[in-house]
Amino acid sequence: MRTIKVGLLGLGTVGSGVLRILTNNQAKITQTAGCQLEPAKALVRNPAKHAAAAEQIQLVTDFGEIANDQSIALVVEAMGGIHPAKEYITALLQAKKSVETANKDLIASCGPELVRLARDNGVALRYEASVAGGIPILNTLAQSFAGDEITQVAGIVNGTTNYILTQMAQQHSSFAAALKQAQQLGFAEADPTNDVTGKDAAFKMVILTKFAFGTDVKIADFNYQGIEDVQAFDVEQAADLGYVIKLVGISRKQNGEIFVEVAPTLVPQTSQLAQVNNEYNAVAIESMAVGRSFFYGPGAGSLPTANSIVSDLIAEASAAHPTSFNKLDCQLPLAGPAEVVDPYYLSLLAGTKTTELALAQLVTEQKLETTNLQAIGDAAGHHLILTTKPMSRLAVDKFIKAAQAVKISVDAAYKILE
Amino acid sequence: MRTIKVGLLGLGTVGSGVLRILTNNQAKITQTAGCQLEPAKALVRNPAKHAAAAEQIQLVTDFGEIANDQSIALVVEAMGGIHPAKEYITALLQAKKSVETANKDLIASCGPELVRLARDNGVALRYEASVAGGIPILNTLAQSFAGDEITQVAGIVNGTTNYILTQMAQQHSSFAAALKQAQQLGFAEADPTNDVTGKDAAFKMVILTKFAFGTDVKIADFNYQGIEDVQAFDVEQAADLGYVIKLVGISRKQNGEIFVEVAPTLVPQTSQLAQVNNEYNAVAIESMAVGRSFFYGPGAGSLPTANSIVSDLIAEASAAHPTSFNKLDCQLPLAGPAEVVDPYYLSLLAGTKTTELALAQLVTEQKLETTNLQAIGDAAGHHLILTTKPMSRLAVDKFIKAAQAVKISVDAAYKILE
Repeated sequence: MRTIKVGLLGLGTVGSGVLRILTNNQAKITQTAGCQLEPAKALVRNPAKHAAAAEQIQLVTDFGEIANDQSIALVVEAMGGIHPAKEYITALLQAKKSVETANKDLIASCGPELVRLARDNGVALRYEASVAGGIPILNTLAQSFAGDEITQVAGIVNGTTNYILTQMAQQHSSFAAALKQAQQLGFAEADPTNDVTGKDAAFKMVILTKFAFGTDVKIADFNYQGIEDVQAFDVEQAADLGYVIKLVGISRKQNGEIFVEVAPTLVPQTSQLAQVNNEYNAVAIESMAVGRSFFYGPGAGSLPTANSIVSDLIAEASAAHPTSFNKLDCQLPLAGPAEVVDPYYLSLLAGTKTTELALAQLVTEQKLETTNLQAIGDAAGHHLILTTKPMSRLAVDKFIKAAQAVKISVDAAYKILE
Repeated sequence: MRTIKVGLLGLGTVGSGVLRILTNNQAKITQTAGCQLEPAKALVRNPAKHAAAAEQIQLVTDFGEIANDQSIALVVEAMGGIHPAKEYITALLQAKKSVETANKDLIASCGPELVRLARDNGVALRYEASVAGGIPILNTLAQSFAGDEITQVAGIVNGTTNYILTQMAQQHSSFAAALKQAQQLGFAEADPTNDVTGKDAAFKMVILTKFAFGTDVKIADFNYQGIEDVQAFDVEQAADLGYVIKLVGISRKQNGEIFVEVAPTLVPQTSQLAQVNNEYNAVAIESMAVGRSFFYGPGAGSLPTANSIVSDLIAEASAAHPTSFNKLDCQLPLAGPAEVVDPYYLSLLAGTKTTELALAQLVTEQKLETTNLQAIGDAAGHHLILTTKPMSRLAVDKFIKAAQAVKISVDAAYKILE
C-alpha cells in the first residue's frame, strides 16, 4: 500500500486535532483514502510544549524542514493569520505540495491568487474547514450543487456571535454580559473584534459567494454589520413579533447580479435558522432544482475543524491527480443598494420631549409601508416598533435621515428574512 | 473541449428531470464537470408520449441501441423497480459504461453484487439519489466523514409517511384521512404499501448503514415497522408530553455491533428532526469528531432527485478514472434485540371491565421503570400512558406479553429518541 507523508504547520487547537484524527482513525482513513496518510513532521515554535505529540510526529522548528522535504506531499496549514501563513503556503505550492487549510482570513483575502498559484504548479489548495468548521458546505456546493442553479445562500457562520445572541434571547442578557460569559466559556476570544463586528462572517461569505455563484468579491465590496449594537430591548420586541435575531450572512443572485451582506437579521421562530443555537452554525441554500436545503453542524472546535481538514487530505490523497477544489468561475456584477428589497424591522425612539404623534407623522409623511406598528412608552421616551413591506437598504437609510431631522432616532433597522 | 455522451433509461418523473437539468444548466455543468455532458439517447416505451423531449434527445425503444453504442460512456437508470433495471445495469456495466441511478430497491437488494460488477469492469456505479432524494447524504458520508467515526445515523427518509404524520399532528387527522389527502396531492402513490409499511425507509437504511459503517445488511436482517397503526390518540398524547411521532430509521454502532431499525419514534418537539415536516427528509449524524450534524432537504420530486443524479454524472465525468462511490467496507455483526436500550413510550388500554388498579399492578409487578405516568379514562376503557427508562426491545416485548396475559393491550410501544 502507498504511503503519503503529511506535514503540519502548527499544533494548536486545529493542528493537534488533525494529528489526533490521523492517529486514532488510521484504519478507516487508509480504506477511504486508498493509501496510508502518515503524519511526518509538525512545525512548532516551542517543541517542549508538545512533548506528547512528539511520539506521533517529528517536531521541527524550521519551516524549511517541511518545505524542502521531498517525501512530504501534503501539508496542513493550521497556524491562522495572514502572515507568515501566506508566505509559507506560497512556498509549499511552489515546491509542488498540495495544501489544506482552515484559514478563512487568508482565503477570503488572497484566495484567487493562491488558487491560481496551486493550479500553475499542478497541485491543489483545499479549505473546507474555512467556512462553518465541521459542516462540509464547500464540498457540498462544489459537488452536489455542481449542476444546480443556486439563488440564495443564507448562513449563520460565526459561532461566537451566535452564542451571544442565543444567550441574549434565552437569558435576556445584555450584549456585554453575554459576551463576558462567552469569553469565560471559551466561545469568544479575549479580543473578539473580528467576530462581533461581523468581519469573520464576512470573510466566510466571500468564500461561500465564490462557491455558490463563482464570483470573487472582497469584504470591502459589501456591507457587513456586527452585533455590538443589538439591544436586549429589540431581541424582546422581535420575540413578541415571532422572530429571533441572528447574525445572518446572505449571498443572493438576482437579475444576474450578486448581493452580499452580513447583518443582524430577524428570522421567524419557526424557521430552521432560528433553531441554530449557541456555538452551532448552519447554511440554508435555495436553488432551482433542489429547492430548499439546510446544513447544520458545529462551526468551530478542534475536532470538527480538523475533520474537515482530514476530509480534504483524503480527497486529495485518493484523487488520481491534484484536483481543483472549486471549478466554478462566473464574475457577476454586484447589485447596488437600491436594487435589493427585503422587509425590515425598525425601532424608532422619540425622546421624552417628542410626542407619540411625531412618530406617527413621520411614518405617514415618509410614506413608509408598514405591516405592523406598535407604540411603547417607557422612561427612555416613546418607542415605535414597526415592520415594513419589502424596501431597499437605500430607502431605509433615507428614512433614518428623515427621522433624525425631526429628532427621532432609529435605534435598530434589521432585515427580516422570511 | 471533451464531450461525454449520456444515455437515459426512462423519461418519467426522474428521467425527464435529468434531461431538463442537463439542458437548462449546460453552461455551469460544462464548467464544473470540465467537459460537455451531451444527452444522447433515451430509452422509452412509447416515443409518441415524449414528443417534446425528442427535440433534446434521440428516443429509442430498443435497449441495445444504448448498450451497444460505443460513444455513450455514462447511462442514467431512471426506470425504478428490480426488473429489468437489474439486467439492464448489469449489461451496461459489462459494456464498460458507468451507471447512475436513484433505484433504492435495487441498490438495497443487490448493491454489493452490482458494485463488485462495476469494479471488475473498471467502471463506476453511483446512486446518490437513492436515499433522501435531494439531500447529498451519501457523498457527504463517503467524503466528508471519510476520516470520522460515526456512531449513529437517524433519518426521516420517507416523504410519504412524513407527510401523513405531519398532517396527523397538525390537523389532528386519522391515518386513513391523512393517507387519502396525501394521495390526492400526489405525495402518496395509489399503492402506498412500500411507504406506509416502512419498507421503503428500510431500503434506505440498508444503504445508509453501508455508507456510515461499511456493513452490508439486508432488510430481512432487522426490524422495520410502518405507520399504519399509529393512532391520532397517541399523536396527541405524545404532543402533550413534548414529542412528535416521526417514522425514524436508525443505524447505530455500539460495542462494535450494528443496530438498524425503522419504527415510529418519539422525537422532542424542540429537536431538529421534529421540525422536518410534510414531504421533506432529513438525516442527523452523530460522530466522534464532528459531534452532531444535520442535513435537510426534499426527499423526492423530479428536479431534486434529478439534481443528485446529475451530481453523480458530473463527479464521474470530472474524475480522471472511474471512482468508487463508497470505499468503506467493514462487516460488523448485528446487535441482538436485548443489547440495545432506549426509553419507550407505551400506551396501555384496559377494557371497560378491567380496573385502573390492574394497570398500576401490572406496571409494578413487571418492575417497569417509568419516567412519566398518566391515567386517562374514556369510552374505550382505562388508558395508561407512560414513558420508561432505557430498556431493550426484548424487555418491551416481554412486558407486552405479560400485559396481554391480564387482558391489558399495549396499543403503542414507540422508542423515544432524545
